[in-house]
Amino acid sequence: MSQVRIHNFAVSLDGFGTGEGQSRELHFGHAGDRLHRWMFATGWWQPGGSGGVDDAFVQRHDPGIGAEIMGAGKWGHPGWQDDPGWTGAWGPNPPFHTPVFVLTHHPRPPIEMDGGTTYHFLDAPPADALSAAREAADGRDVRIGGGPSVVRDFLAAGLVDHAHFVVVPILLGRGVRLWTGLEGLEKDYTVETTSSPSGVTHVTLTRADT
Amino acid sequence: MSQVRIHNFAVSLDGFGTGEGQSRELHFGHAGDRLHRWMFATGWWQPGGSGGVDDAFVQRHDPGIGAEIMGAGKWGHPGWQDDPGWTGAWGPNPPFHTPVFVLTHHPRPPIEMDGGTTYHFLDAPPADALSAAREAADGRDVRIGGGPSVVRDFLAAGLVDHAHFVVVPILLGRGVRLWTGLEGLEKDYTVETTSSPSGVTHVTLTRADT
Repeated sequence: MSQVRIHNFAVSLDGFGTGEGQSRELHFGHAGDRLHRWMFATGWWQPGGSGGVDDAFVQRHDPGIGAEIMGAGKWGHPGWQDDPGWTGAWGPNPPFHTPVFVLTHHPRPPIEMDGGTTYHFLDAPPADALSAAREAADGRDVRIGGGPSVVRDFLAAGLVDHAHFVVVPILLGRGVRLWTGLEGLEKDYTVETTSSPSGVTHVTLTRADT
Repeated sequence: MSQVRIHNFAVSLDGFGTGEGQSRELHFGHAGDRLHRWMFATGWWQPGGSGGVDDAFVQRHDPGIGAEIMGAGKWGHPGWQDDPGWTGAWGPNPPFHTPVFVLTHHPRPPIEMDGGTTYHFLDAPPADALSAAREAADGRDVRIGGGPSVVRDFLAAGLVDHAHFVVVPILLGRGVRLWTGLEGLEKDYTVETTSSPSGVTHVTLTRADT
């Protein structure tokens, strides 16, 4: 069976997956770009970027993925539901290049973007959303794209086979917590931690029986 | 001036410095020994133990230290205040070998133990406790020994020069949080992260101007 994977999900040392005060201008709220500077410094993000462990991990984002599931807060700023013409925070050629299932209590018709991304809007629990994404992925893997609430819900439901988190050594103090309600999660996984010269620590959870 | 140091302070990936349900039998509550297995595996703890990065860090616990400050919950189980004959959770020859200042709202007379440890009991804010400990340390450094509330209070008060945390890749889910109220703490420090083959990650904060 195809795998369910999480990649490059950044979290502060104090456990916040996004900051407080998300807006159209500040997709991660008061965190700004601080959770993702390690990523922007890689060769994956920009020519001439780093080619070490951060790049090795980040490069796994796309290969083998046939669909993504994301939350409403990753797709757009708070309030997008009131703007029927809004096509998401990811530009005209979004970096997904597959069907993307946006979880929202305010579904709208699908939107076809450039570069292979089609947004589908679903009001569904994790298992049902995964069924839809799996069908669209046509045998390839499904990526859970975030934000923190969506990642947490899929982990809590036991639906994730491989998860890659990037612990950034900053204390955001406020925002949306990632780890809530996941006591003992590590028991179902092989856990590995790798620190990078950039200062971040890569934490991977790989399901023991896969 | 002598330094204020934190060593070997273990915290779960979800930010708990101790578990829930602390008792005489379970000093770290439902965490059991899971926050400290990395330490018990070192040569510092037992002959034949590991001699790598975990051991290198843990060995820094004692050298140069002239006094420790700890919280009431590190000194004893909840309720020790009602037991006037209790001499702490650390046995007749405690592993401190210096004056130890126990922060409590229920002070009692000092207790002299074997091996150079004397417990002093203080009801004082962090800066005042530090003055007392510095005087007792006679030019040597002061260690902030925990638990999480005491560590957090001293960090928030800007009194710590060097802090060493050990992030253990488990999700405790409940207990006493370490990182609360410390937003932006990293700005005052040089931060370094080092993962260990044991699976833990060492995070050091060293004050930039020391």
